[in-house]
Amino acid sequence: MIQKSQKTKIAVVDTMFARGDMGKVAIETIEKTARDNEWQVKVVRRTVPGIKDIPVAMLNLLEQGCFAGIALGMPGSAPIDKQCSHEASMAIQQAQLMSKKTVLEVFVHEDEGKNDQDLANVMRNRAQKHAQNLMWLLFAPEELQKRAGSGERQGRDNAKKLEL
Amino acid sequence: MIQKSQKTKIAVVDTMFARGDMGKVAIETIEKTARDNEWQVKVVRRTVPGIKDIPVAMLNLLEQGCFAGIALGMPGSAPIDKQCSHEASMAIQQAQLMSKKTVLEVFVHEDEGKNDQDLANVMRNRAQKHAQNLMWLLFAPEELQKRAGSGERQGRDNAKKLEL
Amino acid sequence: MIQKSQKTKIAVVDTMFARGDMGKVAIETIEKTARDNEWQVKVVRRTVPGIKDIPVAMLNLLEQGCFAGIALGMPGSAPIDKQCSHEASMAIQQAQLMSKKTVLEVFVHEDEGKNDQDLANVMRNRAQKHAQNLMWLLFAPEELQKRAGSGERQGRDNAKKLEL
Amino acid sequence: MIQKSQKTKIAVVDTMFARGDMGKVAIETIEKTARDNEWQVKVVRRTVPGIKDIPVAMLNLLEQGCFAGIALGMPGSAPIDKQCSHEASMAIQQAQLMSKKTVLEVFVHEDEGKNDQDLANVMRNRAQKHAQNLMWLLFAPEELQKRAGSGERQGRDNAKKLEL
Amino acid sequence: MIQKSQKTKIAVVDTMFARGDMGKVAIETIEKTARDNEWQVKVVRRTVPGIKDIPVAMLNLLEQGCFAGIALGMPGSAPIDKQCSHEASMAIQQAQLMSKKTVLEVFVHEDEGKNDQDLANVMRNRAQKHAQNLMWLLFAPEELQKRAGSGERQGRDNAKKLEL
Repeated sequence: MIQKSQKTKIAVVDTMFARGDMGKVAIETIEKTARDNEWQVKVVRRTVPGIKDIPVAMLNLLEQGCFAGIALGMPGSAPIDKQCSHEASMAIQQAQLMSKKTVLEVFVHEDEGKNDQDLANVMRNRAQKHAQNLMWLLFAPEELQKRAGSGERQGRDNAKKLEL
Repeated sequence: MIQKSQKTKIAVVDTMFARGDMGKVAIETIEKTARDNEWQVKVVRRTVPGIKDIPVAMLNLLEQGCFAGIALGMPGSAPIDKQCSHEASMAIQQAQLMSKKTVLEVFVHEDEGKNDQDLANVMRNRAQKHAQNLMWLLFAPEELQKRAGSGERQGRDNAKKLEL
Repeated sequence: MIQKSQKTKIAVVDTMFARGDMGKVAIETIEKTARDNEWQVKVVRRTVPGIKDIPVAMLNLLEQGCFAGIALGMPGSAPIDKQCSHEASMAIQQAQLMSKKTVLEVFVHEDEGKNDQDLANVMRNRAQKHAQNLMWLLFAPEELQKRAGSGERQGRDNAKKLEL
Repeated sequence: MIQKSQKTKIAVVDTMFARGDMGKVAIETIEKTARDNEWQVKVVRRTVPGIKDIPVAMLNLLEQGCFAGIALGMPGSAPIDKQCSHEASMAIQQAQLMSKKTVLEVFVHEDEGKNDQDLANVMRNRAQKHAQNLMWLLFAPEELQKRAGSGERQGRDNAKKLEL
Repeated sequence: MIQKSQKTKIAVVDTMFARGDMGKVAIETIEKTARDNEWQVKVVRRTVPGIKDIPVAMLNLLEQGCFAGIALGMPGSAPIDKQCSHEASMAIQQAQLMSKKTVLEVFVHEDEGKNDQDLANVMRNRAQKHAQNLMWLLFAPEELQKRAGSGERQGRDNAKKLEL
């Protein structure tokens, strides 16, 4: 957990390719949550062409002092696009292991929405919820633990929790 | 094998996304097995949003002194969720090779259960058996060797052993 | 961002296998953009047999002083060719993380075109746009940020931007 | 190639999950081949729960002085099991590259056998032949080279050799 | 590029599993090309059981002084064999990035041939052309660049070049 008195740098990397400005939504949520809780943060943003350009950009920001990151992108709907998203995700995993820092991945697949409005809703909801999660990870991990195994979802309604 | 007189730290990393608190089940099994055998353990737990957030969290716990870990999560049922579970698993493999420490992976796929009750049974059974396995790995590896090639399963009934 | 007064070395790696000289198109775009903006660049080009030979060639150029790279290739249309392109892409990701430098990947799949003319158009367009993107990444990152989440595509028409 | 006068340590890692004790078969072949040829070997065996637990266990044995290893396991027949075997295999590759030592992988897929007896035959045959191969790799590499491109198979009959 | 007066060591790694001696074909081509051009080479050959045993063998040869390598193998025709070839290829990529040296991969899939004669033709042709490519890479890279984007194929007829 971060010392609350210092400015915590957070990396936000997004793409030109995505069909909506999820990076802006994430930054607004990060900054509002920080203000509401008196947490000190500083967002560093990079925009790259597409999702496969995210990992190295993110790694550089993490190695230059960001404490954690959020990666926002939109894989297309063709089979080759799924393959590209897999490659981007694997390299984002690698960047985390190399830097020992967490990167939350906010990927919304272009075919997830029933229509443009639904797609926009998923994008906004997922970007907001993961920005919130990132703040908890950095400043209030107990909030995550409270919700362990509770079926929390980002982008859609939560699932039903089962008693074990 | 661990010296039995020192407290052995064990990492438990689970998710908010899963539809049941497998982390709690694993911890109960670890602690009961430890008490029954007079093995000294200390559990360190982290909860992260989803399975792809497990690897870096686990790597950090292992590098901070945990001797081994257990990773509990629930991939969803869509094809993209299988891809995500593959990415998480590959990075958990990587985290093990980087730290030289074992992480048992307790993933229950959301579509493994015939219904909610069956799914809950699989989750509880797999979390318990792998928590047990982890204790054997750390404190009693001869228990594993006794069962070599015996068709032991976690989450379902054991398979039939063949004579070679 | 690069100091504009020094010569910035850029790696261009392409293949014999591709059915058109995308490397030449990329180099022409890089050099024209540099002249138009008075940015000083020096292109270092390597041609390799096929896409799987790109990663190590690129890594060597990046470690020998190139600031960034562009990788151009054409995966064939058979299933095994998709697998090869996946392997090449994964290793290009790895080369980026090892060198901490960006490599834009311009892969045009042989089956992307409706016919030879259409395929040639996709190849030319994608090579030009990504060469342009690379110049922005190196010399004018604000141009990328301006287009964040705007549905920019390379090789085809842009997609519609959604308000979030 | 190993000095024949010293004891060469060989790692054998197998699983509880497999439906037959392939580890025992491999060890018997290793020890018999060693006796027949007056090669000095010492087998170090570890049993782990399932195939995904093999890589880190193997890496540790190789780094603790084993010259090479053999990994024996049985992926299940469901699609998710193929994915798990892929993850295990990728990490076994990684463990080899990290340690610079060879690990022969003896995986028998649960659905390879026409029935239980056939499955048992494949398991025994593949474990024996790969144990033999490992001994050649360590002590008599010329035996492998003699058979270059000859269609040698493990677990099933050899294939027909073609003249090139 | 290599100094032409010293002996350049080249690694050739092939398998027992393949149904024809492609390693021999590659070595003949390497040695003939060297003689014809007065390039000094020394071939170091290793034969391993199957394609998944190539990467670590190749890495060792590259780290022991070989300047580049050629890896020859034959994945079988079953789906699991495609997975194995993917694992081998990924690890060969990794070995190249670790050693910073090029390895040309000559994999002929068992189901590529219309019949045994056709399969033998593909094997011979691909092994010869890639051995030739490797010599160009080491001694005459300008030959590769001359053919950039020209649709050169190994194992089959070349494809038609498009003007961009």
